[in-house]
Amino acid sequence: MRILGIDPGLATLGYGVIEADRGKYRLIQYGTITTPPRQPMPLRLRAISQGVGQLMEIYHPDEVAFEELFFSKNITTGMAVSAARGVALVAVVERTENIYEYTPMQIKQAVTGYGGADKHQVQHMVKLLLHMQEIARPDDAADAIAVALTHANCQHAKELYRIQ
Amino acid sequence: MRILGIDPGLATLGYGVIEADRGKYRLIQYGTITTPPRQPMPLRLRAISQGVGQLMEIYHPDEVAFEELFFSKNITTGMAVSAARGVALVAVVERTENIYEYTPMQIKQAVTGYGGADKHQVQHMVKLLLHMQEIARPDDAADAIAVALTHANCQHAKELYRIQ
Repeated sequence: MRILGIDPGLATLGYGVIEADRGKYRLIQYGTITTPPRQPMPLRLRAISQGVGQLMEIYHPDEVAFEELFFSKNITTGMAVSAARGVALVAVVERTENIYEYTPMQIKQAVTGYGGADKHQVQHMVKLLLHMQEIARPDDAADAIAVALTHANCQHAKELYRIQ
Repeated sequence: MRILGIDPGLATLGYGVIEADRGKYRLIQYGTITTPPRQPMPLRLRAISQGVGQLMEIYHPDEVAFEELFFSKNITTGMAVSAARGVALVAVVERTENIYEYTPMQIKQAVTGYGGADKHQVQHMVKLLLHMQEIARPDDAADAIAVALTHANCQHAKELYRIQ
């Protein structure tokens, strides 16, 4: 099964694509969609929409996992990320309704086995699990791979459950 | 010039379409796009996206005016409205980049001449200016007509200025 992970954002949206087959994971691609802060909001959102649409066309994921928004202390940033997330959700749902969402704690728990893990521990486990040479950069891309892995773990758990 | 006014929302998005010609205004259509609260977020946002896209196709507005988001006391509502607004912006910008935004105070000022006007005064002036039989319902639709009128006023001001 192919999984697209998305860490939503307006300035930088991270994505990671993995192939998951009964507990074995393979990294397909990862990266970011970025939009220039000086551009008007509608054009930035359109770039997010088109970029996510292209990811869907190129990688044909079976399922898509989003990192859930935490409640930002900065409400302006929170609103911008909400808008970007909404636009990304629509770009995805036009191609699949298999959309899932995981909190940062669920992601830490799934990837490292410990919900209080720090960012570096998560990134290190992502590197190990996917046999990567380097830790994924930037952080947004690493986070997106982590949410894809989290979803893969949950799917694996469901499959094992179904077999028993 | 044809103007589409939008009062963004997730549960209810109001819209109003007017024709403005040098200070004369004609109401073309108004209404709401609504999404059921029990539906998953991606489907609700897709309905907003498709609905606004249809408005653009049907009415071919030259310019589109949004009511600016106020900072909601309820952050969950604020995030939902931000997402709906982002999705609506993308649906609009795919067809025109002539997008404008007005604060509630600018709208009150433009429609009633007084920035501290209450909702009822705004609705009453909308009815008068557009020779409507009744006050537009629901409030979201009335607000959307008001933001379209606000933009029409500003356009009229710009045209007069250009003539002199």
